[in-house]
Amino acid sequence: MSAQQMPAAPPSPMLIFNTVMSVQRAYALKAAVDLDLFSAIARGSQTSAEIAKTCAAAERGVRMICDSMTVMGFLTKSGNKYSLTQDSAVFLDKNSPAYMGRALSFLMHPSQVANYQRMTEAARRGGTLPQESPLGPEDPVWLDFAHGMAPLMMPAAEAIAELVQKESGSRPSIKVLDIAASHGLFGLTIARRLPQAQIYALDWANVLEIARKNAEAQGLGGRYHLLPGSAFEVGYGTGYDAILITNLLHHFEPAENEKLLKKAHAALNPGGQVIMLEFVPNDDRVSPPVAALFTLTMLGNTPKGDAYTFAELAAMCRNAGLEGTRLIPLDPTPEALVVARKAS
Amino acid sequence: MSAQQMPAAPPSPMLIFNTVMSVQRAYALKAAVDLDLFSAIARGSQTSAEIAKTCAAAERGVRMICDSMTVMGFLTKSGNKYSLTQDSAVFLDKNSPAYMGRALSFLMHPSQVANYQRMTEAARRGGTLPQESPLGPEDPVWLDFAHGMAPLMMPAAEAIAELVQKESGSRPSIKVLDIAASHGLFGLTIARRLPQAQIYALDWANVLEIARKNAEAQGLGGRYHLLPGSAFEVGYGTGYDAILITNLLHHFEPAENEKLLKKAHAALNPGGQVIMLEFVPNDDRVSPPVAALFTLTMLGNTPKGDAYTFAELAAMCRNAGLEGTRLIPLDPTPEALVVARKAS
Repeated sequence: MSAQQMPAAPPSPMLIFNTVMSVQRAYALKAAVDLDLFSAIARGSQTSAEIAKTCAAAERGVRMICDSMTVMGFLTKSGNKYSLTQDSAVFLDKNSPAYMGRALSFLMHPSQVANYQRMTEAARRGGTLPQESPLGPEDPVWLDFAHGMAPLMMPAAEAIAELVQKESGSRPSIKVLDIAASHGLFGLTIARRLPQAQIYALDWANVLEIARKNAEAQGLGGRYHLLPGSAFEVGYGTGYDAILITNLLHHFEPAENEKLLKKAHAALNPGGQVIMLEFVPNDDRVSPPVAALFTLTMLGNTPKGDAYTFAELAAMCRNAGLEGTRLIPLDPTPEALVVARKAS
Repeated sequence: MSAQQMPAAPPSPMLIFNTVMSVQRAYALKAAVDLDLFSAIARGSQTSAEIAKTCAAAERGVRMICDSMTVMGFLTKSGNKYSLTQDSAVFLDKNSPAYMGRALSFLMHPSQVANYQRMTEAARRGGTLPQESPLGPEDPVWLDFAHGMAPLMMPAAEAIAELVQKESGSRPSIKVLDIAASHGLFGLTIARRLPQAQIYALDWANVLEIARKNAEAQGLGGRYHLLPGSAFEVGYGTGYDAILITNLLHHFEPAENEKLLKKAHAALNPGGQVIMLEFVPNDDRVSPPVAALFTLTMLGNTPKGDAYTFAELAAMCRNAGLEGTRLIPLDPTPEALVVARKAS
């Protein structure tokens, strides 16, 4: 090593140690959510004794969790009183409309963590075994996913709706297919903005039940149509101005995605667009960080999925007959829109 | 909320999301260590294809892990070639003397993670159930602990040895008791510095086997004596100039620790010192971060253990008859020494 290359700081094991210990920090956050202590603080409990009483938990345990939440940035502490941070008040208080506590039940589901515990084997093999995706379509945890992830998806939903409005807003009627509709947020945001839009939502039947309820709660049930089943098997119909494919392509290998995109191409009106929401790393595959790291979710949970670069997604679109593929970043969210068009 | 309190940034779910997703990042690091790809890179493999070949793993999986390691700061990437960081070269290459890969087998042992998965119940109850500390004294994972954690403990071992040298270095003979000796590093560092020191190492018999081998490898076997068993049950003997109690007190409630400290007091020479190594949070219990967060390890793994403040440790020492308790920080390591003395 030359003098020029001499490191400024001595080697330290702390990054390794902190990375490993982040497992317990994640479970501490889950414990705080499960105990619902953020809601307790939102309702006025301040000390560990008061919070423990509200949450029906031991004061000692509540104190240990609250102190840890303070270190981790989810609470502040002044003397022996805890307060919510802005983010906790918005996303972790059960009475907040943007509550995302249920997302933790999905993201930290024992079957997901079991998959991560098999990451060494997945890496050695290049993906999980098909039988290692133990969450079947009817697993109730997908309901937690649908409920919990919606708040995270709001900025993307607004961006998608804006795109559809800009493109098709002047038409007397608009037909939109929302593939992998989940919570329904994407299609419903379009329906709210564009009274002439008819939304066709495709997902597993039990998940669509949530989307349907959300549609009816917003008075949009009359323009909300259900296509229950697999995106690879259900007939889409035709005449769509826009087809949304959100958080879906990363689960599959490129050849499968091309099948899906061909089906979308066939269902679109001329000039209609496919709007994809994806984690899209740069060509270096190591930036931006959250999009690049999404490859781990796919390595751990799917046999052949990946976080695809824009070049890879554009190639899939091209092979499916779509054209003019473009990337629309959604900063500060970690995802991006990829938009392609059927020739007019 | 007044205008003055208005937050500068909009609320964001990213801290929550990143905290939750840190579980998969930790397992990705474990996969990288298990595949031994850091050693492969150290030996000259650069591209994912080359590393995959050396590690007998799929290139796709290796690429996904290496890219993630790059995002996480354990590798650098230039074009399609990966290089080690300084920390990875020192701590994650199996051929480095400071290799700590085996610590991951301990820190992420399925039984530990299972305890974290029960953190909600532990918090509700105020601690784990006694039967939920499933790692018995003879569990081979303690060997991983002993092997893997030693490199992290080197700065503390040097500081302890310096303290003993300063206090007792001029005496013709020195007798040191090393309680919870584990890898043996603490006692052996003293033995290396002070040729007149006799070390008595106390730990479970299978763990002491490692310490004994380390002693013999360093030519110190003749001055290294074994006291196998529990620190609460084994007789210590008498006449010690220093008694080391490293990373032990946090496992137990104060009353138990006072029993241990009274035993130590009885075994010390007048003027002798007890040297404790602990994670010592400030009185606010939310700083410094790593010491404060150590409370989670105790909540998740012990019925009544904790990260004790200096005031709490000083009270235990006082109740055990020790005096002059003082705190010696070991920056930049996350632990500190607490030193107390038997009256001369």
